[in-house]
Amino acid sequence: MPDADVPSDIEIIKQRKKDGIDIPLQKDVQARTTSTYLEYVKLVHNALPELDYDDIDLSTRFLGHRFSAPLIIDSMTGGTDEATVINGRLGELAEKYGLGMGLGSQRAGLKSEELASTYSVARKNAPNAFLIANIGGAQLAKGLSVDDARKIVKMIRANALVVHLNPLQELVQPEGEPRYKGVHAKIVELVKSMDVPVIVKEVGAGISREVAIKLEMAGASAINVAGAGGTSWAGVEKLRADMVKDRKKARLGEMFWDWGMPTAASLIETRKAVKLPLVASGGLRNGLEVAKCIALGASMAAMAYPFLKAAAQSREALFEFADSVLAELRSTMFLVGAANVRALASSRYILTGALAQEVSRA
Amino acid sequence: MPDADVPSDIEIIKQRKKDGIDIPLQKDVQARTTSTYLEYVKLVHNALPELDYDDIDLSTRFLGHRFSAPLIIDSMTGGTDEATVINGRLGELAEKYGLGMGLGSQRAGLKSEELASTYSVARKNAPNAFLIANIGGAQLAKGLSVDDARKIVKMIRANALVVHLNPLQELVQPEGEPRYKGVHAKIVELVKSMDVPVIVKEVGAGISREVAIKLEMAGASAINVAGAGGTSWAGVEKLRADMVKDRKKARLGEMFWDWGMPTAASLIETRKAVKLPLVASGGLRNGLEVAKCIALGASMAAMAYPFLKAAAQSREALFEFADSVLAELRSTMFLVGAANVRALASSRYILTGALAQEVSRA
Amino acid sequence: MPDADVPSDIEIIKQRKKDGIDIPLQKDVQARTTSTYLEYVKLVHNALPELDYDDIDLSTRFLGHRFSAPLIIDSMTGGTDEATVINGRLGELAEKYGLGMGLGSQRAGLKSEELASTYSVARKNAPNAFLIANIGGAQLAKGLSVDDARKIVKMIRANALVVHLNPLQELVQPEGEPRYKGVHAKIVELVKSMDVPVIVKEVGAGISREVAIKLEMAGASAINVAGAGGTSWAGVEKLRADMVKDRKKARLGEMFWDWGMPTAASLIETRKAVKLPLVASGGLRNGLEVAKCIALGASMAAMAYPFLKAAAQSREALFEFADSVLAELRSTMFLVGAANVRALASSRYILTGALAQEVSRA
Amino acid sequence: MPDADVPSDIEIIKQRKKDGIDIPLQKDVQARTTSTYLEYVKLVHNALPELDYDDIDLSTRFLGHRFSAPLIIDSMTGGTDEATVINGRLGELAEKYGLGMGLGSQRAGLKSEELASTYSVARKNAPNAFLIANIGGAQLAKGLSVDDARKIVKMIRANALVVHLNPLQELVQPEGEPRYKGVHAKIVELVKSMDVPVIVKEVGAGISREVAIKLEMAGASAINVAGAGGTSWAGVEKLRADMVKDRKKARLGEMFWDWGMPTAASLIETRKAVKLPLVASGGLRNGLEVAKCIALGASMAAMAYPFLKAAAQSREALFEFADSVLAELRSTMFLVGAANVRALASSRYILTGALAQEVSRA
Ligand SMILES: Cc1cc2nc3c(=O)[nH]c(=O)nc-3n(C[C@H](O)[C@H](O)[C@H](O)COP(=O)(O)O)c2cc1C
Ligand SMILES: Cc1cc2nc3c(=O)[nH]c(=O)nc-3n(C[C@H](O)[C@H](O)[C@H](O)COP(=O)(O)O)c2cc1C
Ligand SMILES: Cc1cc2nc3c(=O)[nH]c(=O)nc-3n(C[C@H](O)[C@H](O)[C@H](O)COP(=O)(O)O)c2cc1C
Ligand SMILES: Cc1cc2nc3c(=O)[nH]c(=O)nc-3n(C[C@H](O)[C@H](O)[C@H](O)COP(=O)(O)O)c2cc1C
Repeated sequence: MPDADVPSDIEIIKQRKKDGIDIPLQKDVQARTTSTYLEYVKLVHNALPELDYDDIDLSTRFLGHRFSAPLIIDSMTGGTDEATVINGRLGELAEKYGLGMGLGSQRAGLKSEELASTYSVARKNAPNAFLIANIGGAQLAKGLSVDDARKIVKMIRANALVVHLNPLQELVQPEGEPRYKGVHAKIVELVKSMDVPVIVKEVGAGISREVAIKLEMAGASAINVAGAGGTSWAGVEKLRADMVKDRKKARLGEMFWDWGMPTAASLIETRKAVKLPLVASGGLRNGLEVAKCIALGASMAAMAYPFLKAAAQSREALFEFADSVLAELRSTMFLVGAANVRALASSRYILTGALAQEVSRA
Repeated sequence: MPDADVPSDIEIIKQRKKDGIDIPLQKDVQARTTSTYLEYVKLVHNALPELDYDDIDLSTRFLGHRFSAPLIIDSMTGGTDEATVINGRLGELAEKYGLGMGLGSQRAGLKSEELASTYSVARKNAPNAFLIANIGGAQLAKGLSVDDARKIVKMIRANALVVHLNPLQELVQPEGEPRYKGVHAKIVELVKSMDVPVIVKEVGAGISREVAIKLEMAGASAINVAGAGGTSWAGVEKLRADMVKDRKKARLGEMFWDWGMPTAASLIETRKAVKLPLVASGGLRNGLEVAKCIALGASMAAMAYPFLKAAAQSREALFEFADSVLAELRSTMFLVGAANVRALASSRYILTGALAQEVSRA
Repeated sequence: MPDADVPSDIEIIKQRKKDGIDIPLQKDVQARTTSTYLEYVKLVHNALPELDYDDIDLSTRFLGHRFSAPLIIDSMTGGTDEATVINGRLGELAEKYGLGMGLGSQRAGLKSEELASTYSVARKNAPNAFLIANIGGAQLAKGLSVDDARKIVKMIRANALVVHLNPLQELVQPEGEPRYKGVHAKIVELVKSMDVPVIVKEVGAGISREVAIKLEMAGASAINVAGAGGTSWAGVEKLRADMVKDRKKARLGEMFWDWGMPTAASLIETRKAVKLPLVASGGLRNGLEVAKCIALGASMAAMAYPFLKAAAQSREALFEFADSVLAELRSTMFLVGAANVRALASSRYILTGALAQEVSRA
Repeated sequence: MPDADVPSDIEIIKQRKKDGIDIPLQKDVQARTTSTYLEYVKLVHNALPELDYDDIDLSTRFLGHRFSAPLIIDSMTGGTDEATVINGRLGELAEKYGLGMGLGSQRAGLKSEELASTYSVARKNAPNAFLIANIGGAQLAKGLSVDDARKIVKMIRANALVVHLNPLQELVQPEGEPRYKGVHAKIVELVKSMDVPVIVKEVGAGISREVAIKLEMAGASAINVAGAGGTSWAGVEKLRADMVKDRKKARLGEMFWDWGMPTAASLIETRKAVKLPLVASGGLRNGLEVAKCIALGASMAAMAYPFLKAAAQSREALFEFADSVLAELRSTMFLVGAANVRALASSRYILTGALAQEVSRA
């Protein structure tokens, strides 16, 4: 659960962290009237692929690290017992499969050793994987210090630090404080002070070209667009507002449930605007969509909800899901005749429907 | 109810004025096969808004007056007991919230003191608000004098005078007289003679660029586009025609129910054609749509039916509705990173679907 | 019923002529998967029409004749008792309302005086109206002489002669003979020899720009595009094929039921291609659609099926239908601010949807 | 059934060949969410066709051979008893109607005389028809020699040899081996060594412009685009995977069921990219669609599934189906005024909807 500003009491934090897992798992908080727009992206069939399926190389480099596949388990959880189990499983997967893995917002982990261990379990299980620490942009503005950020990185011996931007969640969250003044300055400061690369991400409403340019100038190492079409944090907080009978917030959550730039649209306009490596996230659900994102210019693709769902079920379900995604990605690469990720990245694609229309005007 | 030419007997006028409130409230006379096209306007999410929600400034200037928000309660009613209650509540809201407020067509108010008070109640409750007097363009052509207009303004100590154009209503109304010859000349005359600014508005069929240019040249101070997609006056009069068994008029009402330029289309083409300040109206239903209209170039946004519905229910319902609209507007501004109305006005937007197609050809 | 080549026996002709009225009246043979595309044409609302409804002048000139409105009862019937009644009523309407009127294919009328009278009844009832004689292009090619054409014109003292082109009907008709070699040459010959203007028309599949150019060079005086979207003659003949158990023809009728250029598309491309006056027909059903056709560049609009339906019901129904159409046309002119047909012809329109897309590529 | 690499045991081959006929016939393995896009191609009605239906000449030349119509029974079957019956009937049709006919992948025919006869029955019944031998591109890469190819041609005294490309089928097929390395080189070698022209075809996922250019440079004599919109081989193999409970393959089959370039899209982009004669195939179902493909630039049109369905029913059903297709083709030519195939090829067409959008961006 991205980290909105809340009362610091540990039990409250634990409950909120629990909601942040339970609601996505037990209710439907996926996009309703929008989509990722990835269905409007067509890759081109190659009838003569000139390669063997088994020779296809999924490995790639991102931020100086080698990955077995261009896939990241997107930032999700920590802070509860359930999270410990999930982060443990996800860590195991990241290690075995050579994937990247993000942790959930770690401010909670600063409160106690016990809470910290709900995050660091991932590193325990994944001594060599690329792990990504996580803090909220809003928290930075509200006083989280560079030192705190260092502790957070250290907590999991992270290879990179994500700053998540979640203005929509802050707006709808019953306890939310929609304050974003000073976030930009803090990112600039953070970038200068950290030893690991800083990635800036959204949590499901996308990054526009204007924001991408600001982040590039701020010195970020990469951007995760995390666009609309998948998990809706307006949706999650809408349901939490219902639970606490906050009708105003619930109404806002309803209205902005599908707010944001669809992932494919965000990816395309961001790709044109900046040179930074990009991570595509928000509503990706299979390996074909991963392939489309790489073709559109992402260096890596990330998923949150599908990994959560599988990990919450069982270790087996998680590994099987990852197997599927990688098989689908490899299959797509076979069908477009791309022997490796670099070739996939330069594959021809066709934009159709609403995406084609909107992008041509953008 | 806009003012079509009718027998002058006070009881008849009262009944028509009553119909004009009761039909919109009790039947569905909203657009059926068209919409405002505002659903085709997308504002761009700003993941890094660099502002605090509470610092957002909704205030704005329009026609030399300061408003707490770019919102007008559009011209509606007067002339009946029910209207007195509604105008009283709306006046109270305008005063407390610093909004603009239009009155219904006031020709009836010239007939008697009793009728006049159904309008002036608004001023009683809103000593400082920006109130807008209202007369029909067709009535001007049929002999309503500049002096009458002055009386109408005086009746509510109005800050501006609206001339409404309603050729479609005149056409469908059982007692209607579709005569528009001379209206333009009368507007020119009126503009020269009045001490308050003259705004010209439609009542739900929109203003085209050709008409906007004529109005600018005639010296109007502002235009309210009042386009299609909300309350349909062809619809209202169609139902009235049914009641008096006027089959021909009913058939016309049916055929032209959704006639007119969708609000967003009218706003965009009018914005390109003239420099005048514009009011967006016609089918706006929440603060997100208000924000879209400001981004498209409107100085103010106005709503009629939703304010009527809430006011007819209770004072509380009315204030709660206004609260929602303002919270939605402020939320949207937060999400696009606009600290004030001027910033909102220069926000990027994306046109999609039918609107994009029609506008690019216009 | 357009005139495909058939056994000359009078009883057979009578039966076919009867089918040609009865099937459209009793079964649904209107377009199914296409439309006229007129729903994609938007006229622009004029909030300031500067005219009075009652002053609107519907009269117009076409081929040197003055009409009270730009409306023609399109070519339909003759040859049966029922046709006599219908042609009588239509003639009366044309006379009283100053409309044009086409007769059905008159080759049958050459066979006997009795048959001739089923056509000439129109002239009896309409001594002054613009009546249009009718022969089939295919019949010309198969030997109908210039002399026959003269007799046909004389039969109703016609003001113009229509040659109808119906290759699709000939193709599907059980007794049809799809032979069009020589039709063009015959039209050239006819044009040279006739004393009245020669109009060439389709019967529901439209005229392309290539054909329009050929007709202009052949010397035709006007073209009636009669496009797809209304009565389908493939549909009529499909049902007749069902009746005689001709499965092959029935299958063809099914496949080509909606073949052809939608009326609006045909009108637009023909208008760009030639200078000839154009008649719009095919699927027009009300006065709003008539107005759209005039705005798109037609000199006159024509309807067949709706006049047939009304005339078959009663004289009153027919006149009431005509009243509606004219009221709707006048209303539309009021709403776009067109005081007369010439002004309507130069009104702005907006092309949308499939029509906009197809026309921009044409 | 296209020829994926399988255990060589004759009984197993027979079963797979049987599946390859039975599944398409008994289950629905046609395209589900895509189409050929031929519904987006409109031919232009010619109201003045200047020709007689009976004079229309359907004959054409392709690869030096004269055909009575531009129609090929696309490559399908062999290797089973049922196939013998079907190939016998199809051969008879090809002979009597002057059509082309492809055989199914003939590698099986190399195994035994008995299997060979399931193919050669076609030549027995069609001594003069243009018969097309068939081998899989993947088989070439896996060692099928030029000598084998010569035997395959000889087996049916073929007029041409097709190499089919089926990477998607290989990917989904439970026993499939998705290996395409070396296929291109083998095609180059084959082209140099064969005495008959070599045609390269897909089996339902289409040929892109990049592949078309490679094939032209490789020296292929023609390309059969065989695009998406008809029989889906991902679909066939998905059902076979279900039968053997291979869940992974079944999931892949599900995901890629509609993968590929729609036939019309593939045809248009391939036509622009190369000068080679093209065969249009994939989802064609009637003579109107055949005509559209010719207008889009194909030299010949081919169908597989519809011929299989009719042939499996009876000799009569097969001939009747062919009659329909030819009548529909001839009818379309009449309606666009094309006296022969060359004229049809230069007929105007209008691209609409998704096809227009995608092609304009391609
Ligand atoms: C249960 C859950 C918790 C999340 N918590 C965080 C978080 O703490 N920090 C963060 O940056 N993003 C968080 N996210 C957002 C995801 O990283 C991701 O950007 C977003 O969910 C879109 O991806 P999806 O549609 O695949 O879920 C969370 C998402 C989920 C589903
Ligand atoms: C009950 C009612 C009465 C109205 N009466 C008037 C009027 O007297 N004068 C006028 O200019 N507009 C009148 N209008 C039109 C509105 O001002 C507004 O332009 C139109 O209804 C479109 O806005 P909406 O969709 O928000 O209702 C009336 C609207 C309503 C709903
Ligand atoms: C009953 C009926 C009979 C017709 N007969 C003829 C005819 O004899 N000659 C002709 O040129 N067109 C004939 N038509 C075609 C019409 O003139 C017109 O072009 C066509 O029906 C499209 O118009 P609609 O959709 O308004 O019916 C006939 C149409 C109908 C409905
Ligand atoms: C039953 C069946 C068997 C097929 N077998 C082969 C084959 O052996 N070789 C080949 O090149 N294509 C084969 N195909 C593919 C067809 O030739 C054709 O390209 C494809 O089915 C698309 O056409 P359709 O939609 O008309 O079926 C087969 C198709 C069917 C339906």
